[in-house]
Amino acid sequence: MAAHNVTFEKTIRVLLDEKKYQTLKDVLVTIEPADIASVFEELEEDRMPLLFRLLPKDTAAETFAELDPEWQELLIRGFSDTELREVVNELYVDDAADLVEEMPANVVERILAQADPQMRREINEILQYPENSAGSVMTTEYVSLRPTMTVGEAIRRIRRTGIDKETIYTCYVTKEQRLIATVSVKDLLLARDDDTKIADIMDEHVISVSTLADREEVAQTLARYDFMAVPVVDTDGRLVGIITFDDAMDIMVEETTEDIEKMAGMLPSEKTYLRSSTFDLFLHRIPWLSLLMISATFTGMIISGFENALAAQVVLTSFIPMLMDTGGNSGSQASVTVIRALSLGELEFSDLPKVIWKEIRTAVLCGVALASLCFLKIMLIDRMLLGNTEITMYTAFAVCLTMAVTVLISKLVGCTLPMVAKKIGFDPAVMAGPIITTIVDALSLLIYFWIASALLF
Amino acid sequence: MAAHNVTFEKTIRVLLDEKKYQTLKDVLVTIEPADIASVFEELEEDRMPLLFRLLPKDTAAETFAELDPEWQELLIRGFSDTELREVVNELYVDDAADLVEEMPANVVERILAQADPQMRREINEILQYPENSAGSVMTTEYVSLRPTMTVGEAIRRIRRTGIDKETIYTCYVTKEQRLIATVSVKDLLLARDDDTKIADIMDEHVISVSTLADREEVAQTLARYDFMAVPVVDTDGRLVGIITFDDAMDIMVEETTEDIEKMAGMLPSEKTYLRSSTFDLFLHRIPWLSLLMISATFTGMIISGFENALAAQVVLTSFIPMLMDTGGNSGSQASVTVIRALSLGELEFSDLPKVIWKEIRTAVLCGVALASLCFLKIMLIDRMLLGNTEITMYTAFAVCLTMAVTVLISKLVGCTLPMVAKKIGFDPAVMAGPIITTIVDALSLLIYFWIASALLF
Repeated sequence: MAAHNVTFEKTIRVLLDEKKYQTLKDVLVTIEPADIASVFEELEEDRMPLLFRLLPKDTAAETFAELDPEWQELLIRGFSDTELREVVNELYVDDAADLVEEMPANVVERILAQADPQMRREINEILQYPENSAGSVMTTEYVSLRPTMTVGEAIRRIRRTGIDKETIYTCYVTKEQRLIATVSVKDLLLARDDDTKIADIMDEHVISVSTLADREEVAQTLARYDFMAVPVVDTDGRLVGIITFDDAMDIMVEETTEDIEKMAGMLPSEKTYLRSSTFDLFLHRIPWLSLLMISATFTGMIISGFENALAAQVVLTSFIPMLMDTGGNSGSQASVTVIRALSLGELEFSDLPKVIWKEIRTAVLCGVALASLCFLKIMLIDRMLLGNTEITMYTAFAVCLTMAVTVLISKLVGCTLPMVAKKIGFDPAVMAGPIITTIVDALSLLIYFWIASALLF
Repeated sequence: MAAHNVTFEKTIRVLLDEKKYQTLKDVLVTIEPADIASVFEELEEDRMPLLFRLLPKDTAAETFAELDPEWQELLIRGFSDTELREVVNELYVDDAADLVEEMPANVVERILAQADPQMRREINEILQYPENSAGSVMTTEYVSLRPTMTVGEAIRRIRRTGIDKETIYTCYVTKEQRLIATVSVKDLLLARDDDTKIADIMDEHVISVSTLADREEVAQTLARYDFMAVPVVDTDGRLVGIITFDDAMDIMVEETTEDIEKMAGMLPSEKTYLRSSTFDLFLHRIPWLSLLMISATFTGMIISGFENALAAQVVLTSFIPMLMDTGGNSGSQASVTVIRALSLGELEFSDLPKVIWKEIRTAVLCGVALASLCFLKIMLIDRMLLGNTEITMYTAFAVCLTMAVTVLISKLVGCTLPMVAKKIGFDPAVMAGPIITTIVDALSLLIYFWIASALLF
């Protein structure tokens, strides 16, 4: 994708340099708003306003909605009131609400001053919902119909009001503001004749979400049922907005990126990698690195506690990294699998016994296979090939037994912690690699030294 | 979500036990196919066929498409030829093609024997494309229009043929089979009058994908442009199919799960966690565990090589886990961030210098902060609080210097490997936690012993 932007960017730069504005206009109408936004963000700041003014009105609003907040702010600061009014009132209301949330106070004042009264009311309605709730990401621009309308009347209503709606393809049938059914434009078009009543073709088995539902859950609902949009209702069952599939896709991508960042021991970031400053990256990475480093005090204490044993048999030290890493890897496998299943809604807390039983069996298979392989490796590679004669059969046996036990324990820790975290209201994604590794390190060292002490001394 | 299935399941069980089939029919029409499929998969095998026969014809096909392959096979084996014909020909052709791909040969023969000639031809067309290509996931059921038609003619055509199409909302305008434009039903409905020519309202700036494009790229295209469907064209620009947003969402979820599994050192699996057998899990987890365990031979060799130094100053051993883990965590942070940016299309190989420069600066900040904190921790906790008098200022300095250098090197390895992997055609997701940790372990030990030897002996 970046590839076509490069081409666009060059063309646009040349045309700007040569002041061929009419050609630029003709070129810009052929480009999708998402691509225009990418090109804008590559240009010098002082060229953006000029280029923006060359866009047709509706493309301008769509392009504006695709820009990062910093560029939106830059443009707004350059806009006259008239220009600002045109862009703001052309935006979909959910994009306008996002904008108001991102801008500093003095810019927000200007935006709200230029917004139409209805737009202003709807923006304020969306902003009252908690962050990441369905209410905060919905749009209030949908087509509503009454059950007593005919198909012909419904189609006329869509023709009259549809231009400003985010989707016209699913229409919502309401009675005293309460959502009672949906009807699709497909059903309207395929209806036998124009006098058919909406009540006769509408689908009363409506799936809706509450204004306070988590946005991730909303995205999952859309994906599960292949819906183009899902209606949002308040606690009294009144229809207040809809969330469309394109917003659901964005939510899914953002939530997954957050999960992945947390799993790798980072604080989630809203900026893309290339737009994050060095200091942003530092701030998102240092907390977990510091915390995990400090907690390594325990592993240090364990090793110090067995210092005499280690001094007597220094060869034991050489297996520490292998045992720790295998434990960490086994634990990560289990935790990441469980975290993903939790976030896709495939697992819930009541499945814990099933999960534990599955992981125990898997761990026994993995543990036995790894321990056998490890025994071969130690005897063939470490002892025979590398000629390390300090390694006895007993040492090898102690290492392999530790490995089997460590795999079992790390899989158990790895599958249990995320589910317990979710149950007590923490984010399961945090219970992945880094934390599991730290816990498993300490456990595997303890097991190692106990087994070694029992077998070798 | 699992919560409502539990309720449905109980209701359905009770009604089945009491043989209240009419009530069951009335209940089933109120439930979404995706939920019916979940309930089916919870029931005993011998109850499924009976329940399936109670579904209305179109819901039956949709529910069938939502089932896991093992249940589909079970049902087909119980179907009469007539029942099979009804279900198969009611499926969307992309779901039918998926089915044919999943079933064993003798079941496939029966399916193709019962499919209508046109369905059979279209299934075979889809099956000829390579796995995970756009061609293999597209559907051939779309609405095509000619530029010379009027809006009225177009709407009549949609009314006549739309019932079997996967989406009617974006129509494709073709000329001698070549895709020349798109027109949305919204544009048709909002057109001023029925005699307007399609040529006058159609959008000629079409974004399409090639039959051989990777399905992940297709999903990204849909998400980027907020399209409801994207057309698939062959090398001559002829329209051969479309891919709709709901399939794109499924692709995104599957590809991300695959990435996450690879990042945690597992082979990707197509089954959900609860449906995977113990042996499945074992087979997906053991290869990387074994490989990484064997490669720990290197860390073992490094430690053996410095055995004398360690025997002289056993306290050095106690810092090994902390140094290794901090290195591993720093490297994972960088690699996971880069892998995610690569798979979202935010980064490409030409950005490598930018990425390296950003990581160097971040690593210096993180390294200095961690080393300072580590120095405090060693002097205050390890030496003063825990009274470990073996630890000198020099030891602490050696450990902290190692930490700073390790953080730098692991961030560099972490950001470079995934990008190089992608460049030479490997999957970047494999270059995450486990592999980076193994490489960084060896490097951090080498650095540690070099620095310790230089400073302390």
